[in-house]
Amino acid sequence: MRHILRADQFDHDELARLFGRAIFFMEQDQHIKTRRNTLKLHQGRIMVSMFYEPSTRTRFSFEIAAAKLGMAVIGTENAAEFSSAAKGETIEDTVRVLNEYGVDAICMRTKEDGHAARAAAVSNVAIINGGDGKAEHPTQAVLDAYTIYQKFGRLDTLQVVMGGDLAHGRTVRSLAKLLSTYKNNHIIFISTPELQMSADVLKYLDKNGTTYEQTDDIEKAFTGADVVYWTRLQLERHSDAKLAHGTQAFTIDKSTLRYLPKKAIIMHPLPRVNEIAAEVDKDPRAVYFKQAGNGLYVRMAMLDAILKELP
Amino acid sequence: MRHILRADQFDHDELARLFGRAIFFMEQDQHIKTRRNTLKLHQGRIMVSMFYEPSTRTRFSFEIAAAKLGMAVIGTENAAEFSSAAKGETIEDTVRVLNEYGVDAICMRTKEDGHAARAAAVSNVAIINGGDGKAEHPTQAVLDAYTIYQKFGRLDTLQVVMGGDLAHGRTVRSLAKLLSTYKNNHIIFISTPELQMSADVLKYLDKNGTTYEQTDDIEKAFTGADVVYWTRLQLERHSDAKLAHGTQAFTIDKSTLRYLPKKAIIMHPLPRVNEIAAEVDKDPRAVYFKQAGNGLYVRMAMLDAILKELP
Amino acid sequence: MRHILRADQFDHDELARLFGRAIFFMEQDQHIKTRRNTLKLHQGRIMVSMFYEPSTRTRFSFEIAAAKLGMAVIGTENAAEFSSAAKGETIEDTVRVLNEYGVDAICMRTKEDGHAARAAAVSNVAIINGGDGKAEHPTQAVLDAYTIYQKFGRLDTLQVVMGGDLAHGRTVRSLAKLLSTYKNNHIIFISTPELQMSADVLKYLDKNGTTYEQTDDIEKAFTGADVVYWTRLQLERHSDAKLAHGTQAFTIDKSTLRYLPKKAIIMHPLPRVNEIAAEVDKDPRAVYFKQAGNGLYVRMAMLDAILKELP
Repeated sequence: MRHILRADQFDHDELARLFGRAIFFMEQDQHIKTRRNTLKLHQGRIMVSMFYEPSTRTRFSFEIAAAKLGMAVIGTENAAEFSSAAKGETIEDTVRVLNEYGVDAICMRTKEDGHAARAAAVSNVAIINGGDGKAEHPTQAVLDAYTIYQKFGRLDTLQVVMGGDLAHGRTVRSLAKLLSTYKNNHIIFISTPELQMSADVLKYLDKNGTTYEQTDDIEKAFTGADVVYWTRLQLERHSDAKLAHGTQAFTIDKSTLRYLPKKAIIMHPLPRVNEIAAEVDKDPRAVYFKQAGNGLYVRMAMLDAILKELP
Repeated sequence: MRHILRADQFDHDELARLFGRAIFFMEQDQHIKTRRNTLKLHQGRIMVSMFYEPSTRTRFSFEIAAAKLGMAVIGTENAAEFSSAAKGETIEDTVRVLNEYGVDAICMRTKEDGHAARAAAVSNVAIINGGDGKAEHPTQAVLDAYTIYQKFGRLDTLQVVMGGDLAHGRTVRSLAKLLSTYKNNHIIFISTPELQMSADVLKYLDKNGTTYEQTDDIEKAFTGADVVYWTRLQLERHSDAKLAHGTQAFTIDKSTLRYLPKKAIIMHPLPRVNEIAAEVDKDPRAVYFKQAGNGLYVRMAMLDAILKELP
Repeated sequence: MRHILRADQFDHDELARLFGRAIFFMEQDQHIKTRRNTLKLHQGRIMVSMFYEPSTRTRFSFEIAAAKLGMAVIGTENAAEFSSAAKGETIEDTVRVLNEYGVDAICMRTKEDGHAARAAAVSNVAIINGGDGKAEHPTQAVLDAYTIYQKFGRLDTLQVVMGGDLAHGRTVRSLAKLLSTYKNNHIIFISTPELQMSADVLKYLDKNGTTYEQTDDIEKAFTGADVVYWTRLQLERHSDAKLAHGTQAFTIDKSTLRYLPKKAIIMHPLPRVNEIAAEVDKDPRAVYFKQAGNGLYVRMAMLDAILKELP
C-alpha cells in the first residue's frame, strides 16, 4: 500500500489488519506512558496536510493521528487561497515540489473529482485522499466499517438501514458498496424518491448478490435492524407535498427509537443538524460521536501501515 | 481545576501557585538545557486550538506554551470558516467530537458570550476560554495580575489607575474585579463620561470595600500611582466637544510621564495604536511588552496545572 | 549572522559553509536513523512563521526545515487578516511581542518592501526574510546559487541565460547580482525590450566586471549555456505586435532543447504556468523541482547557523 485513494482498494484481509491495528492504537492511547511509546514509532517523519476545502473532522483527526505517531505536521487549511494553486499551478506540480521536501505522506482534500489520483500518478510520496470533490473519501468508508466491526465483530450477515440523502451522500454510497463485498448483508434504503440510492450502486449490489429494498417507512425498516446509518436529508431542496411528511419521517427521535432493537447502533458521518434529535445522544445505541473518534485510530493504523515500509 | 472559564474562578491560593509556577517556567526558559527538561513534562499530550476569531497574542502564546511543555498542537485560526460551524454544527457537537480524539486540552476563542461555558458543559476534556465574545478572557486577567505581582510582590495595598475605554474593555473590567478581592487597593478610573466604568463593576467594588474615584484628570491620577493600566479610547466613536481635549488627555507621552512615580508600571493589553506614544517604550516603567510575554509563562502554568491531573 | 535580510549579506565563505551544511542535511535526510539525529539538534527551539502573503514553497520548506531540526513551529498563513495587523498594530510592535515569547527565529513574508529590516531593527530574535514585497527574497537567491553549485561545483566561469520577465523578477535580479560577485561569468538576458533587466542591475554587473548581452534570440543564447534560469513572461501584459512571436520565443519545449548543451541545467523559481512545456520535465537537464527541494536543505543550513549561536 503506497497511496490511499479509493474505498475499494482494501481487501478483507487488509481491512482486518487495519482494524486490529486501530484497536491497538486505541488501547495505547488510554495512558500517557503507552502514548509515549506510540510517539516513538514514527518520530522524524513528516506529514503534509493540504486542504483545499474546509474540514474539521478529517483534517483534525489525521493531524492528531500523525502527531500521536510522533510525526510533525506542516500544512494549510486553505490551500485554495494560500498555495500556488492561486497562481495557476497544477496539482501535479504542487505534489512534485512536496516530493522534494523529504516528507513521508501527503494528506489532501481537493475540490475536484480525481485530483487525488492525479496527485498519486506523479508522487513517490504516499498520497492520502481526504476527500476529492464528490468522488471518494476512502478513510471515512473504512472508519464506518470499523465502527460496525467494533460492535458486531463482523461485517457480514447484518441488516443495515441507510437513510437520508442517499443520492448525493458520498459516505453511504461507499459503505453500501463495501458491505456488498461481504456475505449475507441486507440493506434497506430510506429516502424520498428523488434522493434514493442511485442505479450504479444498486447494480453493484445486484452483481455481488446483496439483497436490498427501498422504502420511506422508518418503522418497518428499524424493526430488526443491526445498523442505522443516517445522513442529512436536505429537505430545503424539496418543495413538493411530501415535504411535511418528510420532515418528520427523516428525523430520528425518541419515538422512532421505539422500533429499533436494543443491540442496534445508530451511525452518522456528522455534522448533523436536526435529522437526529439531541435527545437521542444519550441513548446507548447512538454511536456517532464514537464513530468520529474511531476516525482517529483508523487513520493512525493507515499512516502506520504506510510509514513502516519506508527507509 | 478542569476548565478555565472565568477570571473569578481562581482564589488567592490558586493564583499564588500559578504565579510561582510561571516564575519557574520563565527561569527554565532561559537556557536550552532546562528548556529540554520542560519539554519532557507533557510529551504525548495534545492541545486543540480552535479560534473562531483572529488573535495573535492569545493564540500564539498558548500554542507556544503548549509546545514548550512538549505538547503537539492541532488547530485552526479560522474556525468560523474552516470548521463544521460553517455547516451549522453546534459548539456542543464540535466539542463532543474533539473529546473523542484523545486530546488533553481545547483552547478556544469564540464570537459569542457563553460559548466556552456551553463547551465545558459537554466536555470531559479541559476547555480553556481564550476569550468568548465580550464576556470573559480569564487568562488575560491572570497574566495582568501576575505582571503586577512580579513588580510589587503583592496584589493588595496598591493605587491603580485605569484609563481609556472602561465601558467596553473586557480586560480592565476583569482586573478591577480581581483586584477588589484583595485588601486596601484604590482604583482611579480615567475616561470620558460616556466610556466610564460601568455600574455593575462599581457595585462589585463597593461590595468588596474597594475604594475608587472617577476622573478625567491624568495629572492628579498619575501622582502616587503604583500601576497605570491603559487601554485604547476609541475616540473615533465620539463627536462631541470634549474630543479635542480627549485626544491629548488620553495619550501617554513624555509630558504625562512626569507625573508618574519612579516605582510605577505602565501596562496595556495591546495592540496599542497611539494612546501610548512610541517615545514611552524605552521608559523603564513601560512593561506592556513584558506583560504580553508574561502571558506565555502564565499559560504554561495553567496548562501544566490541568495536565498533571490526567492519567 | 543574526538576521537574514538581504541576498548580498552573505560573502563567498559564508555561502560555501552554508552549501556544505546543506549537503550534510540532505544526506542525513535519506534514512530515518540519521533523520532522528538531525531531530535532536535543536529540540526545544521555536520558530514563528508569520506570512502576510500566500506562499507554498517558502513557508512549507521553512516549516519543514524547522521540524526536521527538531523545532516546534507556531504561526499563521494569513497574518494580514488573523493577526493584530488587522487592528492597526505596527510590524515593530508585533515583533516586540514575539520577542517576549521565548522564540528563537521569526520567519516572515510581508507585503511591503523593507518590513523585514524594520522588524530586525527592533528584534533580539533572528528575523528571516521570506520575501518582503518586491524588495528581497534572500533565501531564494541562496538556494538558486546552491543549485548551480551542486551541478558545477563552482559559481564562477559560467555562461548563464536568464529569460522571461527580467524587469520584475525578484529572483533573477538577485541571482544576477550574486553571480557578478564571482569571476568570469557571462550572462545573456532574453526578454522583450519592455521586460529587459533594469539599469541598476546592469550597472552593478559593469562595476563588478561581469560581461553580459541582451537578446531575444533563444537559439543563439542556449548554444553554449551552462545554466538557463527561466521565469514567467507575463505576456498578458503585452499588446504589441511582438506578442505572437513572444509566446513561442519564451516557451521552452522539446524544440528549444535541441540548442542546449547536454551538461546544462534548466532552472525556474516556480510556479511555472506554460513557459516550460510539461514535456521538458523528464529531460535530465530540467532541475526546477530539485531546485525547489534544495530550498529545504539550504533553509535547514541557515536555521542551523542561526540557532547554534544561541544560549
